[in-house]
Amino acid sequence: MTFAALADPTRRAILARLAKGEATVLELAEPFSISLPAISRHLKVLEEAGLLIRGRDAQRRPCRLRVEGLAPVSHWVEHTREAWDARLDRLESFLQSQQATKGADSDDDRTP
Amino acid sequence: MTFAALADPTRRAILARLAKGEATVLELAEPFSISLPAISRHLKVLEEAGLLIRGRDAQRRPCRLRVEGLAPVSHWVEHTREAWDARLDRLESFLQSQQATKGADSDDDRTP
Repeated sequence: MTFAALADPTRRAILARLAKGEATVLELAEPFSISLPAISRHLKVLEEAGLLIRGRDAQRRPCRLRVEGLAPVSHWVEHTREAWDARLDRLESFLQSQQATKGADSDDDRTP
Repeated sequence: MTFAALADPTRRAILARLAKGEATVLELAEPFSISLPAISRHLKVLEEAGLLIRGRDAQRRPCRLRVEGLAPVSHWVEHTREAWDARLDRLESFLQSQQATKGADSDDDRTP
């Protein structure tokens, strides 16, 4: 859900704006050439993904970034990278062990 | 493009599998109950997003994770978090300065 919410560039731009401070729907809509209903739909997706909180002030309903909502993304990327690093480490160990075996085998062939 | 590629759970599962080592299309398709053409479409999206490399071996064409392709995601998340942290720092400084002013104003009112 978080990744799907972040898949849209307008939604990422909205979050980047909110990272600098809360804003009303009108303020968020201003830099984009899209309608208010379209902005509201984006905000709903972000809210459902746990990336945005709407204020309780009935008039303004300011939007605020929910930065904890980004954690699943960081976790997934870190987890994938760690698995990849572990694989590279195993590969390196294997190549070193091969090299050691080869070195032991060809001790007499060494050139100075 | 990277975020859109990662928005699909099957594609994330494929990348998580590839983080453990390269695999053929058949091997990747095995745990999913979807057709080979569907898997191939997912692989194409991942390849276009720079997250996957296809091997040159014409028979097997093994797939490999391109871990550098995840960098835009980490960068975006980090950048957004940093902007948020900077905002919180400014807010904290402001509150502390308010507190200091208030403390100076009410020095005589202090209770022991």
